[in-house]
Amino acid sequence: MGEWGLIERLRQYAAPEGMGFRDDCAVIQAGGGAQMLVTTDALVGGVHFDPALMSWRDIGYRSLAASISDLASSGACGEARYVVALGVPGQLRVEEIEEIYAGMADLGEQTGAGLIGGDTVESAVPFISITAFAPVERPLLRGAAEIGHQVYVSGTLGASAAGLQRLLRGEPPEQAQRFLRPLPRVALGAALARLGAGACDDVSDGLFPELQAIAKASGVGIRIDESALPLEPGVPRDEALRYAYDGGEDFELLFTAGPDFDLAAAAKSGVRLCRIGEVTQAASGLEVRREGRLEPLVGRGYQHFSGGDA
Amino acid sequence: MGEWGLIERLRQYAAPEGMGFRDDCAVIQAGGGAQMLVTTDALVGGVHFDPALMSWRDIGYRSLAASISDLASSGACGEARYVVALGVPGQLRVEEIEEIYAGMADLGEQTGAGLIGGDTVESAVPFISITAFAPVERPLLRGAAEIGHQVYVSGTLGASAAGLQRLLRGEPPEQAQRFLRPLPRVALGAALARLGAGACDDVSDGLFPELQAIAKASGVGIRIDESALPLEPGVPRDEALRYAYDGGEDFELLFTAGPDFDLAAAAKSGVRLCRIGEVTQAASGLEVRREGRLEPLVGRGYQHFSGGDA
Repeated sequence: MGEWGLIERLRQYAAPEGMGFRDDCAVIQAGGGAQMLVTTDALVGGVHFDPALMSWRDIGYRSLAASISDLASSGACGEARYVVALGVPGQLRVEEIEEIYAGMADLGEQTGAGLIGGDTVESAVPFISITAFAPVERPLLRGAAEIGHQVYVSGTLGASAAGLQRLLRGEPPEQAQRFLRPLPRVALGAALARLGAGACDDVSDGLFPELQAIAKASGVGIRIDESALPLEPGVPRDEALRYAYDGGEDFELLFTAGPDFDLAAAAKSGVRLCRIGEVTQAASGLEVRREGRLEPLVGRGYQHFSGGDA
Repeated sequence: MGEWGLIERLRQYAAPEGMGFRDDCAVIQAGGGAQMLVTTDALVGGVHFDPALMSWRDIGYRSLAASISDLASSGACGEARYVVALGVPGQLRVEEIEEIYAGMADLGEQTGAGLIGGDTVESAVPFISITAFAPVERPLLRGAAEIGHQVYVSGTLGASAAGLQRLLRGEPPEQAQRFLRPLPRVALGAALARLGAGACDDVSDGLFPELQAIAKASGVGIRIDESALPLEPGVPRDEALRYAYDGGEDFELLFTAGPDFDLAAAAKSGVRLCRIGEVTQAASGLEVRREGRLEPLVGRGYQHFSGGDA
């Protein structure tokens, strides 16, 4: 039973309001007509982060980045606030705990996110659970893609996965900054909400699963043009495609928009926007135009490095 | 280095607003003048809960109860919403995960608290991290006790610890409902905020540490009258006193109030309120009137069952 199956079972326990379990964020009514986005994520040592591969400061930064990116992709229009629950093994030194917070503060300096509270408990397995909030006026949803809309993505895809591979090959952390220190697209997310974009999601698990999530939530198909994908430069093409489709944690924004959308205004947020495809009928599913042919789009098997269209 | 020391070190990373790290809840400005209370807590299997001692449903209920009690003691004036991050070992069945949510929903039915989102991840050690929110108009703080104010507590003290002891002795769960299913004082907390109470805290760690916390945060001393404590009936007095002073998770409210406070109006929330002492000068510290003598109040060592005033 995958995560989606579990989510469907747990929906029966959820309050009726908000985006609930389908999106990265829920929306709470805060009184006086104000709305707040809320997102919660847990990261576990040995599963989601590896203290042997990166510093506690990087772990703190990256953990918060995932939450801030969820807020950005949901159209947050103001500074984020966050609370942290830390599970720390008894042998972890106070200085190391402090480094986790220092890494989160590094991201806070770049995005305005501010720590407002926390809980630190003993746990044999380290974990970091972050809940982050931000004001929102017009939430961006996964399920808002419309047939005929264009599909866009920001920045480049696969940069984080490429950085991880460099780290694993023993190259210095300076060569892996897009993996260690990804910068969520906060200004772009706010602009997309203001300018009336359609569906939006952050590329936290690779382009392929995010396209799937938007198509499923919106009841549409999506056709992309592989030659249009903004791939990580300096990487062999087949590898770059695997990173783009199934490499995680780029935190770029994938969004749809109609013909009246002001792309130039959105681009003023300072990141390159690339049209990569269009929204089609549900019956078409996910398709890719590749070397002149239209094919069903399937995952590239990045995680297992199977090398083919598994 | 205790929790307070760590908290002081981490304060440097916190945003300036809100109650921050001194209280159980932080306050966020939600736009339009609206304020929300936020509280986050993590509970770890083998440290904070024991699946061998109670059902997953009870574990879910109790975990959320701690968060709802934090909101109540901070003066929440509306229904709570919460998000859950669950760490689950691979061998935990989906039905057991669902039971955790069902237990939280049991409490939601009694208090109006509603689940709005969550994250479930794999972890060798099970953990439950809950972040809960509620609207607030006038937050109740630990640091608002004033010299000359009276000190009150709701309900009875030590009922949860007494229930735990019955469970440990092998008595059936029906004899331990105040431990397994404590009911946070939601209506009372809202009334205390509305009626202008002073300092407030929930008795989550026993009366002694909560008195310490209010005295420290307010810069005052507190003198209590031991004969006035509302002890758990049917338990030998010395044992009942240990449970009251240092037994945890009663989730009763401990609060201070000035001479104009309308106690009768507060009691309309449906729980007995008991005057147990008064706020004194900081130099007096914590004192207890016991068998006609005034003594310094120290912990009773409930956790280690040392049997004396250790």
